[in-house]
This record gives sequence, structure tokens and C-alpha cells, in this order.
Amino acid sequence: MILIGERINGGFQDISKAIKEKNPEPIQKWAKTQTEKGANFLDINMGTATKDPEDMVWLVEITQQAVDTKISIDSSRPEVVEKALETCKHEAMINSTTAEKTKLDSLVPLAVKYDANLMGVTSDEDGSPQNVEGRITNATTIFSACMEEGLDTRKLFLDPVVMPLKFMQEQAKNLLDAIKQLTMLSNPPPHLSIGLSNISSNAKERRLINRTFLIMAMAVGLDAAICDVNDEKLMNQVATAELILNKDIYSDSYLNTYRMN
Amino acid sequence: MILIGERINGGFQDISKAIKEKNPEPIQKWAKTQTEKGANFLDINMGTATKDPEDMVWLVEITQQAVDTKISIDSSRPEVVEKALETCKHEAMINSTTAEKTKLDSLVPLAVKYDANLMGVTSDEDGSPQNVEGRITNATTIFSACMEEGLDTRKLFLDPVVMPLKFMQEQAKNLLDAIKQLTMLSNPPPHLSIGLSNISSNAKERRLINRTFLIMAMAVGLDAAICDVNDEKLMNQVATAELILNKDIYSDSYLNTYRMN
Repeated sequence: MILIGERINGGFQDISKAIKEKNPEPIQKWAKTQTEKGANFLDINMGTATKDPEDMVWLVEITQQAVDTKISIDSSRPEVVEKALETCKHEAMINSTTAEKTKLDSLVPLAVKYDANLMGVTSDEDGSPQNVEGRITNATTIFSACMEEGLDTRKLFLDPVVMPLKFMQEQAKNLLDAIKQLTMLSNPPPHLSIGLSNISSNAKERRLINRTFLIMAMAVGLDAAICDVNDEKLMNQVATAELILNKDIYSDSYLNTYRMN
Repeated sequence: MILIGERINGGFQDISKAIKEKNPEPIQKWAKTQTEKGANFLDINMGTATKDPEDMVWLVEITQQAVDTKISIDSSRPEVVEKALETCKHEAMINSTTAEKTKLDSLVPLAVKYDANLMGVTSDEDGSPQNVEGRITNATTIFSACMEEGLDTRKLFLDPVVMPLKFMQEQAKNLLDAIKQLTMLSNPPPHLSIGLSNISSNAKERRLINRTFLIMAMAVGLDAAICDVNDEKLMNQVATAELILNKDIYSDSYLNTYRMN
């Protein structure tokens, strides 16, 4: 499972404050904590704290001072993405393009140029389709654009867009069906990823819903997620699911060893 | 989800003792507890405590004195099964036949005669196949026998046989693949069930492994299980999975309401 730590995001108050004050401490603390908990990538999102590409560069630099973990540049603005890519020392992730032509035309070539991974969200000019077919159509558009541009499709992560269970309950099942179908897009398929926390927006049992949905999605083919790697119950259940899928080897101490892989 | 409570089983010391002493109290206590926790059926298994069909009749009778919950007669001996079926006041389950001709020839007609459900375990004369194909072959044999005999296939529960994760790790993934394929056996498909606890035999994190595996199996089509309904974390996760599969309606108090359905 490829885990992308969600915590360095200007949507969180401590991170927003740190960006505005140019205080590296909270950001480096979360970089280290998420890395220790097993994050394979650290997502970096400026939120509404700033629009200045130089702030993204600063965030990438101070994160790389703290850890060697790969970075996911969470911005849809090509000028921000390219500045950050120039700064990344390790293989990065662009998070994200959609199926919109203007985005694909700028972000796919950037992924190729910098040998980066690319998250492709199955939205288009009309928003996020709420049925399986629309998700597959947009996924196919993104996949084709990557093929044409010469991006290794094992560097493509497709995200079929999670909706809140509390408000759009039928979407959870649609998403599982979309994941199942997307595993058949190519052989080997691109990575399949979700932004997990949205499934439990405004719900009462947030963490229970998060971990239940993630495990069910793994059962049908999901192999990546942007999530709260600091949630121990979530991580223990991911480690258990990896054993069940025969991707890790059983030992009585598997919960301890999982984070070290 | 159709939950079959596993606790009235002579393999547990308190039940074995109660059977030998003809003491109804522990059995009726578990009948009530499991019913309150949400069991749709109560499995009754004499274990090695006795071989007398009259003891099964006694178990069914005292259980029915305590609760109205449907009963799963856990015996492969037709003479025990028929005695018990005669005693059952409500629609019962025969647990279980295999794909062996001698078993099918006696147990399928009994299911038809008593309008009972039938659990079909995908084993045959050679034991339990350890690959997907063998499980499907035996499932098809059982399914065909039920069709020929006129048993409504919505009364058939197919069990593709869980093996311990600790000792046969690759079997868990095979089982998920078998469940996926068995959902395509007919439309509507027969029920798909597992004996859950075997997945965690001798493992350290038994309950974590149990609930992770159950939820993953639900994601690929499982709709029944023999399990420990007294395990609150398991039940909470089943309730959450039912929401995700859009089989129950979301409310903030869904964990409380699930058991009452």
C-alpha cells in the first residue's frame, strides 16, 4: 500500500499559521511524524494560506531538510508544480491533474520532464461524475493522455473521487465498483488511489468509517491513499489487509514491522 | 448481512458441560446474548460432547424456549439433522453439506422437505481444494444438486472454506477471488458465507484479523458469516460496511440501530 500523508496542508490551522509566519517547526514535526508512522509520500498543500509559488518551494525545502520521504505536490497550478518539482530531491508526485484538456496539456509533460508520478482525479469541466461510467470515461481520458505523452503508466495514480457517506450514500458503492473496473484498464494497471478522509465528512464515527472504507477499497484493488497515517487503528488494519492480500509475510509481530518497510 | 452466532458449540467448555449435565442455563444465556447482539441464526453444534440425536433435539428445544431466533443445525449426519428439523419451529439452516454425492443425496432433499436453508461447504471426497478453481467446481456441483432437487437457490449458502492466515497465507486471497467469482454463479446468486474465526487460528491479533477479513470479504460479495456476534468491534465494522454497500441507511446513530434490525 502506498500511503500519502495528508497532514502538511494549509487547511489545518497549525500549518496555515506556520506558512504565514515562515516557521518550519510544525511542518518539520509533521514530516518526521508521518514518516515514522509509515508514509511513503508526504502531501504538501498550501491551502488558502498563500498563493505564492515561492511558499511551496519553501515548504518543499524545509520538508526535505527534515526527512528523505518523497513529496506529493498538492496543487493544480502548473507554475507552482514546476517550481516545486525543480526543488524536489527525490521522485515526486504531482497531485493532481483532472481529465480537463488544459490541465492534461500542461501537467502530463511536466510529469514526463521531471520523471514524476501523477495523480489523475476523474473529474472534468463539468465536475466529478457521480456514476461509475463517468468515472471510467474520465480515467480513460487521463490514461490515454499519459500514454501519448510517454509517461510510464505505473507512475499514474487514478483517483475516482470519494464523496461523503453521510450525504451521498450511494456513491461509496459506486466508488468500489469504479475501482474494480479500473483494475482492468491495463495490465499492469495504473495505481488506484483515494483521498480517504472525505468519506467520513460530517459523520459521527469518522475513524471507523475511514478505516472500514479503506480496507473494503483495498479488497477490490486500491493500492494507494492520501490519509491520516497518524491514525493507529487505520494503520493496523492496513497492515492486516496487506497480509490478507498476500503482499506482506505473516509474523506474529507484523503490526510492528509494517511501518519499517 | 446474515450473521450466524457461533457460540452454542460443544467445542466451548461451558457448552460441553451443559450438554453433559442437561443444564439449559448456559445455552439459553448464549441464545439470548447472541440474539441481542444481532445474530440472525444461532448455530448449534454438539461438538464431541455427545453423538445422540436426542441431545440435538434437546438443544433445539431449550434454545427455542429462550428465543425466537432461527436455528442452524450444525451436523453433517442426516439422522441428527432430520430429528432437529422436526423440532425447529422457525425456518432452519442445515449446516452443512459438501459436494460429496452421498451428502447431497440425503441433505438436499431434507432441505426441500423442511423448507430449510442449506449451507454448502466447497469440499469433496478429497478434502477442501486450496485453489480458486476447485472451490468453484465444488460450489457448482452443490448448486446443480439444489437446482435439480428444486431447492430455491436463495436458500443455498455457499462456504468456500477459510484457512488460517498464519499457516496458509496465500489462501486468504484465493478465498476473496473465489467469493468474487461465486457472485456470478447465478442471478440472483446464492448467499455466500464463511466460518470466520478460522482465518485467525493461532495468530496473535485474532480479532483484528477476523474483522479485517470479514469486511474485505463483504466488499467482494460475502453476505453471511458464522462468527462471534459478541465481538463489538466486529459488529460495529459490519454495520459500517453495510452503510458503505448502501444496504442500510445512514444516521448518526447507525451503530445502535444496526442490532435492532
